Amino acid sequence: MAQKPSIPKGTRDFSPAEVAKRNYIINSIRGQFEKFGFQPIETPSFENSETLMGKYGEEGDRLIFKILNSGDFLQKANEQAYAEKDSNKLTASISEKALRYDLTVPFARYVVQHRNEIEFPFKRYQIQQVWRADRPQKGRFREFFQCDADVVGSDSLWQEVEFVQLYDAVFTALGLNGVTIKINNRKVLSGFAEVIGESDKLIDFTVALDKLDKIGEEGVKKEMQEKGISSEAIQKIQKVFGLKGNFSEKTEVLKQILETSEIGRKGIEELEFINSAIDELKLNTATLDLDVTLARGLNYYTGAIFEVAAPKGVAMGSIGGGGRYDDLTGIFGMSGMSGVGISFGLDRIYLVLEELDLFPETVTGNIKALFINFGEKESLYCLKAIKELRAAGVAVELYPEEAKMKKQMNHANKREVPFVILAGAEEIDNKMFTLKNMKTGEQAAVSFEDLKDKLE
Amino acid sequence: MAQKPSIPKGTRDFSPAEVAKRNYIINSIRGQFEKFGFQPIETPSFENSETLMGKYGEEGDRLIFKILNSGDFLQKANEQAYAEKDSNKLTASISEKALRYDLTVPFARYVVQHRNEIEFPFKRYQIQQVWRADRPQKGRFREFFQCDADVVGSDSLWQEVEFVQLYDAVFTALGLNGVTIKINNRKVLSGFAEVIGESDKLIDFTVALDKLDKIGEEGVKKEMQEKGISSEAIQKIQKVFGLKGNFSEKTEVLKQILETSEIGRKGIEELEFINSAIDELKLNTATLDLDVTLARGLNYYTGAIFEVAAPKGVAMGSIGGGGRYDDLTGIFGMSGMSGVGISFGLDRIYLVLEELDLFPETVTGNIKALFINFGEKESLYCLKAIKELRAAGVAVELYPEEAKMKKQMNHANKREVPFVILAGAEEIDNKMFTLKNMKTGEQAAVSFEDLKDKLE
Repeated sequence: MAQKPSIPKGTRDFSPAEVAKRNYIINSIRGQFEKFGFQPIETPSFENSETLMGKYGEEGDRLIFKILNSGDFLQKANEQAYAEKDSNKLTASISEKALRYDLTVPFARYVVQHRNEIEFPFKRYQIQQVWRADRPQKGRFREFFQCDADVVGSDSLWQEVEFVQLYDAVFTALGLNGVTIKINNRKVLSGFAEVIGESDKLIDFTVALDKLDKIGEEGVKKEMQEKGISSEAIQKIQKVFGLKGNFSEKTEVLKQILETSEIGRKGIEELEFINSAIDELKLNTATLDLDVTLARGLNYYTGAIFEVAAPKGVAMGSIGGGGRYDDLTGIFGMSGMSGVGISFGLDRIYLVLEELDLFPETVTGNIKALFINFGEKESLYCLKAIKELRAAGVAVELYPEEAKMKKQMNHANKREVPFVILAGAEEIDNKMFTLKNMKTGEQAAVSFEDLKDKLE
Repeated sequence: MAQKPSIPKGTRDFSPAEVAKRNYIINSIRGQFEKFGFQPIETPSFENSETLMGKYGEEGDRLIFKILNSGDFLQKANEQAYAEKDSNKLTASISEKALRYDLTVPFARYVVQHRNEIEFPFKRYQIQQVWRADRPQKGRFREFFQCDADVVGSDSLWQEVEFVQLYDAVFTALGLNGVTIKINNRKVLSGFAEVIGESDKLIDFTVALDKLDKIGEEGVKKEMQEKGISSEAIQKIQKVFGLKGNFSEKTEVLKQILETSEIGRKGIEELEFINSAIDELKLNTATLDLDVTLARGLNYYTGAIFEVAAPKGVAMGSIGGGGRYDDLTGIFGMSGMSGVGISFGLDRIYLVLEELDLFPETVTGNIKALFINFGEKESLYCLKAIKELRAAGVAVELYPEEAKMKKQMNHANKREVPFVILAGAEEIDNKMFTLKNMKTGEQAAVSFEDLKDKLE
């Protein structure tokens, strides 16, 4: 096999610099998750197919990667499907396992399977890969990480408050100031549909409303009318299109619009509770904003809906989202388990930090210094120092071969090592080291203690 | 779907306590890798099938998990194989991707694919999952982590010295004292085969010798004879069976046995170089030992062979292994790339630390304190303290509901939270908190500053 090897489309190799940056983000998120009392779980990369199939709609089923059964898999193949050469129908009989499509369904499965070991409310986080057979395109991959935090077994609104704080804490820790945490409530959306007398068209209504940013008021109204919502109905919520001002100003207008809807008023009440708690507790660098056009995952969410927008000026879709769902585990036969959760978009956060140049310089995973190799005796002298430096937490290494000085210096340059250390016969006799700063070119003879101080 | 959900056999869910312990091990390994100058890479979970197939032998090919093509995969099915219902022959035409089987082949592929970006010698580490369709049994899983460190592009023996130090550093950091790092050299084994005039039976010879521990001297000799190695030949290396003493004593005997074999003498020379360097540099808690019966992955290794045994008294197979290979990337058409690497057995190390009770108590990922919820006003008071505590790095949380005191205390007990904090009307008036130690039952009124000091 002499042709240049490649990887499947939609997947990625990560170089040392990329892994270091990705781990920096993941560790920041993990650190905040843990401070907020979330505990990590991990589930297998593949689940039994019946655990996943049918949970994400027809399109989702298609996008799930299926694993071919091992051995003589055709033995159990569905005969009719085989005769008809029907791929779709054949799949279940030759593939029993499938790669994780998201972290939510496996989490629901985990909760039901381990319900007797879990102490509720259960605050779990999970940072693992998921796989989707989507058409790859810029920024969309077939393998990517999801970073989710959820609480199940409590319908307290303090959870929503906490998630707003958690978003603020993570983005503040990453130095990504000025994000907007947009919040909406499914009950408010239900209220709109109720008020206009089109409760059965809730989905059409919200899907259209969600496009306000993109297609404008007239566009949204047009789409609503196309879906059979009358102009008179739309007129009843005219004020929704012009919502402006701060959080309280918006809720005041909403109260007028939703005056006659009980569920709508409940939604406003929830929004106000969250907003007033956040007012009291203050956010560090983020802003909480009410956005009634927000409708993500509507089939799923029953209360709060969250989405995080990058700081103004950064052209990037949402970098996080989530919401409350009333029945996470019903799909596995365990009902009444309310939950709320949020997730972070690792790949997009990476791009934003890159664009704004927010990765700390220290996030390279690089060594601090390279010891030049002058031969066996000199190497042993250096390795003794190296051992002590590593024990003190300093990443250093010896060039492995007694190569020409130029080659070794070149290696240090290419790897962007900040310091090079030289120890030849003279240094060894004097129990010293020559420390060379690769940026400035300065060099000086130093004792081991000085060396350690400099590098620490 | 009302039946209790389950996961595929050979896979595992990890609870918060298990994830915390596994991450403790992984972070310790990663920390030492980085101090030694290894840099992380990550490769996709699945590779193109042709990258993996044929690289692990026939048995390996069978154990690779194949991913079914998406969409109407039967369209491209090999017609003859389909007509014959030949699973084996059909596979390649309906499955283009396969799950990673180890980290070595993807690493070789990475090196060849990115050769122009890589600065050699390249020290990389990789900690990722691999998947094998092996029959699951105690301690053998279908999904597990491998933790590998390799250097490619250098045949310096200092690398071997460094890997011995690296093993020592990791196990010392984990508090796992007293491991034995066994070393052998492929060239010594080749020397044995040469000396007895059976170079073509090298594999049979070493496979038999590898069993010395299990079946004893007579058993090994019997197996060798069955493989067609004569008694006279075996007589020539009789001393191998009685090798005793320290490293140098063993190499002295080996020098006699291998006097006439050039390759054998080269192997001894390499072993002596490594041993004398380690003698000078000293290990912290591990012991380096020469074990000429060690033959793991013989087809693969060309120089040093490593294996790490758990401390005496712990019944566990090897917890690490590795060696030098002269041609990592030849399978992808790039020759002359010598490398050496080691790996750590995460699952087994976990079991050993568990058995010896070596996980630090702090490795739980648990919160430090739970604030009791007495209502809205009290919660806000607590949340202000919580915000500051988290900013100071202390993991704390508020019980989300105003439940009965008993229920909340019960929750704290079940989650094994060390402290509970109460703040009712009286505490709020006095700007104090009541801190209760859940182990001793002691409680005291403290200011926020005291609270912070106690919990930090």
